[in-house]
Amino acid sequence: MPEQLTYYGNKTAIALQEANAKYQYFEIDFTNKPDWFVKVNPAGKVPAMTYGGPAVNPDQPSPESTKLSESAVLLEFIADLHPSSGLLPSDLVQRAKARFFTTVVDTVVAPAMIAWVTQCAPASTIVDAFKKLQELLPENGRFAVGDAFTIADAGFAPLYVRVLLSAEGGVHKGGKEHASGVLDALSSPELAKFKAYGDRLVARPSVDTTWDKEASAAYLSKLVLGN
Amino acid sequence: MPEQLTYYGNKTAIALQEANAKYQYFEIDFTNKPDWFVKVNPAGKVPAMTYGGPAVNPDQPSPESTKLSESAVLLEFIADLHPSSGLLPSDLVQRAKARFFTTVVDTVVAPAMIAWVTQCAPASTIVDAFKKLQELLPENGRFAVGDAFTIADAGFAPLYVRVLLSAEGGVHKGGKEHASGVLDALSSPELAKFKAYGDRLVARPSVDTTWDKEASAAYLSKLVLGN
Repeated sequence: MPEQLTYYGNKTAIALQEANAKYQYFEIDFTNKPDWFVKVNPAGKVPAMTYGGPAVNPDQPSPESTKLSESAVLLEFIADLHPSSGLLPSDLVQRAKARFFTTVVDTVVAPAMIAWVTQCAPASTIVDAFKKLQELLPENGRFAVGDAFTIADAGFAPLYVRVLLSAEGGVHKGGKEHASGVLDALSSPELAKFKAYGDRLVARPSVDTTWDKEASAAYLSKLVLGN
Repeated sequence: MPEQLTYYGNKTAIALQEANAKYQYFEIDFTNKPDWFVKVNPAGKVPAMTYGGPAVNPDQPSPESTKLSESAVLLEFIADLHPSSGLLPSDLVQRAKARFFTTVVDTVVAPAMIAWVTQCAPASTIVDAFKKLQELLPENGRFAVGDAFTIADAGFAPLYVRVLLSAEGGVHKGGKEHASGVLDALSSPELAKFKAYGDRLVARPSVDTTWDKEASAAYLSKLVLGN
């Protein structure tokens, strides 16, 4: 029997879905974060995971389980646990490219998204980050490093759907042009390749089935706009 | 025959030494960075690598080789190329812990070191970062995640030797107390466990043989202090 695995997240658990893994899911509400969550991740961030130890309720994490956090670390761990998922390409160069894509998502795209959604950073902040990712997309291939869906796609998809949601619903700290600037860029030729990639992410069953758009919109609105 | 591999670095290529890999090494001088280096890494940073393609001089990188960059990506790639090196633990939880350690090095320790060496950040900036790493060290075990030397150690060692060098030689933008604060903390009981770990890194042959202390001191002095 596989070890117990509890995933603490925020609306998405894409890699686990792709791997067809058995797991418990627990939603962390950042507008009302439970005190016990520091036992799972002292840094207080999601995604986080407990692995192994006794079967317990997610809100009573066992001291015996291993605690893991940081998106890129969890993605690799899920891929390691499920080698047949294809989340890590078997070709070593492709694998390095998937990891590089994830690094750009973590160090360029995520900070740009936070600045745009929660502060008043202009649309170009997001658009420039998307252009950086577009440069990395393969000449041929449906996903980040080729035709297969990898950790690179599983890491970026949650950010992409949130940017779309924020842009379409006006859930961000900027003015109207902050949203329309992103939407206009996405429908312009200069981001055509990236947009086609983004459309494939949104249509992917692992993304589509784990992404609760309405609940996320309500939650983001509460978190960002305070209503 | 293995593919050609050229490593563009700055005094250290520890993981390649640990893996007993065949590679060309080329030193990048940031005080006089060659124009062609953008062909290896458009972001202009080291470490970077070319892999595959024809055998060429390092200063004439071929358009046919794969270009890789970002320290964590290179460490994983070297471990993937040399599975018998033990750079990646075979146990999946240990592997996740090694990756988490590397994430803390990249997101906490590296920025702290840059702030301390090149700006006027106080000694506590470095000391606090070292304390974060100390918390991650195993109860028993000589290195970052156990008795084996892994990618976590290979990633941190180059930063550690530079902090020591800067502290001992006064090569940083702060005043005297910026250096003595770090050295005092390293010899105090509160960092005893971390210091013992650091001593093991410095004594490791892959670190010791690739680390040219005098050349590095002269280079750092030119880079940071302009003399």
